[in-house]
Amino acid sequence: MSGSVSEARQWARLMELAEIGGFAVPGTEDIGVNRPCLSALDRQARRVMIDWARAIGCEVSVDEAANLFFRREGTEPGLAPVLTGSHMDTQPEGGRFDGIWGVVAGLEALTAMHDAGVTTRRAIELVAWTNEEGGRFRPGCTGSMNWSGHTKPEAFRAILDGDGVTYGAALDEQLALEADIPRRALGGVPHAYVEAHIEQGPILEAEGFDIGVVTGIQGSRWFTVTLTGETAHAGTAPLRGRRDAVQDMVRAIVALNALTADPTDTLRFTVARVEVSPNTSNSVANRATFTIDLRHPDKGVLVAKGDAMLATIRGAVRDCAVEMVENFHAMPVPFDPLVTGAVAAAAAAEGLRARELPSGAFHDAQFVVPLCPTGMIFVPSRRGISHNPAEYSSPAQLAAGARVLTRVLERLAA
Amino acid sequence: MSGSVSEARQWARLMELAEIGGFAVPGTEDIGVNRPCLSALDRQARRVMIDWARAIGCEVSVDEAANLFFRREGTEPGLAPVLTGSHMDTQPEGGRFDGIWGVVAGLEALTAMHDAGVTTRRAIELVAWTNEEGGRFRPGCTGSMNWSGHTKPEAFRAILDGDGVTYGAALDEQLALEADIPRRALGGVPHAYVEAHIEQGPILEAEGFDIGVVTGIQGSRWFTVTLTGETAHAGTAPLRGRRDAVQDMVRAIVALNALTADPTDTLRFTVARVEVSPNTSNSVANRATFTIDLRHPDKGVLVAKGDAMLATIRGAVRDCAVEMVENFHAMPVPFDPLVTGAVAAAAAAEGLRARELPSGAFHDAQFVVPLCPTGMIFVPSRRGISHNPAEYSSPAQLAAGARVLTRVLERLAA
Repeated sequence: MSGSVSEARQWARLMELAEIGGFAVPGTEDIGVNRPCLSALDRQARRVMIDWARAIGCEVSVDEAANLFFRREGTEPGLAPVLTGSHMDTQPEGGRFDGIWGVVAGLEALTAMHDAGVTTRRAIELVAWTNEEGGRFRPGCTGSMNWSGHTKPEAFRAILDGDGVTYGAALDEQLALEADIPRRALGGVPHAYVEAHIEQGPILEAEGFDIGVVTGIQGSRWFTVTLTGETAHAGTAPLRGRRDAVQDMVRAIVALNALTADPTDTLRFTVARVEVSPNTSNSVANRATFTIDLRHPDKGVLVAKGDAMLATIRGAVRDCAVEMVENFHAMPVPFDPLVTGAVAAAAAAEGLRARELPSGAFHDAQFVVPLCPTGMIFVPSRRGISHNPAEYSSPAQLAAGARVLTRVLERLAA
Repeated sequence: MSGSVSEARQWARLMELAEIGGFAVPGTEDIGVNRPCLSALDRQARRVMIDWARAIGCEVSVDEAANLFFRREGTEPGLAPVLTGSHMDTQPEGGRFDGIWGVVAGLEALTAMHDAGVTTRRAIELVAWTNEEGGRFRPGCTGSMNWSGHTKPEAFRAILDGDGVTYGAALDEQLALEADIPRRALGGVPHAYVEAHIEQGPILEAEGFDIGVVTGIQGSRWFTVTLTGETAHAGTAPLRGRRDAVQDMVRAIVALNALTADPTDTLRFTVARVEVSPNTSNSVANRATFTIDLRHPDKGVLVAKGDAMLATIRGAVRDCAVEMVENFHAMPVPFDPLVTGAVAAAAAAEGLRARELPSGAFHDAQFVVPLCPTGMIFVPSRRGISHNPAEYSSPAQLAAGARVLTRVLERLAA
């Protein structure tokens, strides 16, 4: 019943939730949101969601990772439910749409079905995952990692926030304050999972598409490179004898650019953190450290390019010792044709322009992939800006996304 | 009377002074020295010098900038004296030779003349300039700048050290504690000035020379370049639309390398300080700031290359706004043939291998240039290392330098 989706209601709900932790940015019309997970603001927003969901007859429950579930029963309650959702926490200077829209869009879909009196064979469950952003407690996605069995809850309890509060203590406090909400067990085997999210990249907007049919989450490899040379007096040391770590860093980056050049502009290669020592204008640098963030949706490319980096750097530098450490890797996660097909079909049925694209960012969806057919729906992000008060998707774009989500949920739950 | 120069005595004096503020570097045989100007250690070292100088009949005096003078009278006291000297302060983690050797070499020359009963027509004055290094109070060379009239003493009094002590207060304290030393006026017009110093560069050692006939002090221009782009998500932002400040910095440095390429390896171009913002591995940098240190002994080259830099950077960057500020410049200072000729002749007479070279570093000598014929004598520095406990010149190398200095002083004072 995508026809019962209300652009105005969905927008009004988003704006109401944006006031919980919201702040104006002086000199702009942007509204930022700072709503840390497991905070009083988070709980306030959850209570609002709970009221809205109960008003349309949903059963509410919470698991020990504080993942919050809203269930709209199906005609055959014993069947595996269809799961949708996203997260409600934000980055410290986040926007109004990242995460929360996926939750509100799920509620909009359930509300549209309720208003239209639609029944589905399977139950549909909407989930708000705990701590996707990792803004208060690193890493993020702890809620979906616990739920999926990827990581045991104990593994995260000792993580500290900036005020010295442990994740475990914050979780216990939240669960105590939500003791009135029925508890459910971690885990489950849904029939399928679909997550609606803003793109957080510029492709849909730039190319004039309404909907992104997300084919998977690209893989990432993160490295730190340290070049060690020798300091020298900038005035007295001839260039020929120097072991200048800044100059070797420049040589290394130029060579890495060549290694990672991609005419299709699919590969993401980023050097964004640089530390130089002693970092004094008149002493040749004896050390330069820089990070590499490499991403690609194809595992073969990710492995080949990442594995070639050390030799590329060694071949490029002239005078410095090279050390390279891989700090993190995540292989690409492909989504399931059951879901991607449903998204493409729903967009077509709505008369929307859709294109396939991989997700450049991480999402809770990647931890659901091992359990059931999974997919995501993207809507355009203005100029691709996210994690920023300037983050924006229009009411119409978000309503189109909610209509697609409604059709996908109805189809998967049929 | 260069034959009366004593390698052993000069070395012993250097080692004795190195104990005042000296420290061993664990795991090496290096001895570092931390002797800040206008400190108790500085005063202790000055008292040792005063005792040695008085023992050979020198008159001691101090001016209001705390520059310390030792005068060996000539047969015609009314003639302008020949001046030599250097400084006794060190960098916080300095070595045993930078500065102090020029003072000890001057004393060695006067001692050799004393021992040999040599008389000169002109008096010879040895000076220990205050605060050449700028290690405690920035800028350095305040003593020679005050003495030469380059800058009035009042201009420096408010400078703070790291503990919040003003230069003026430290100066007053030192002068009060040296109230027993006769006071002399700032300034003077010497017949000539010659300063002995370690090279602080690798050229003499690498090319097998004993003595550097310093032709002048190269000019310097210091710039700060700021490139401003836009931050973006390293996973979601295609490379084509990025305004990546790190990548534009790399482009700028590659272009500046081409602009400043010098087959003679005379030009010094250094990028040694880099700051990136937000400096997070997964957010494309929206700002990169880097310094440029450009030096050349030829004013024409210095001006042309420095003036071409902004256009070179603008031509090289792809996406960022460019801002460039010149923070400092000092034009090249040429030394006088009267002194450089005397140095070359003295080296030849001693049978030493000498080559002309410019000074890459700043020295007090540059502030004496406007007042009288000026020059410097360099001895080799092991591996060019300076401002470091590993700084080293051998007893024999330093003795050769003292013999050349003795000959130069005798000739200029004849």
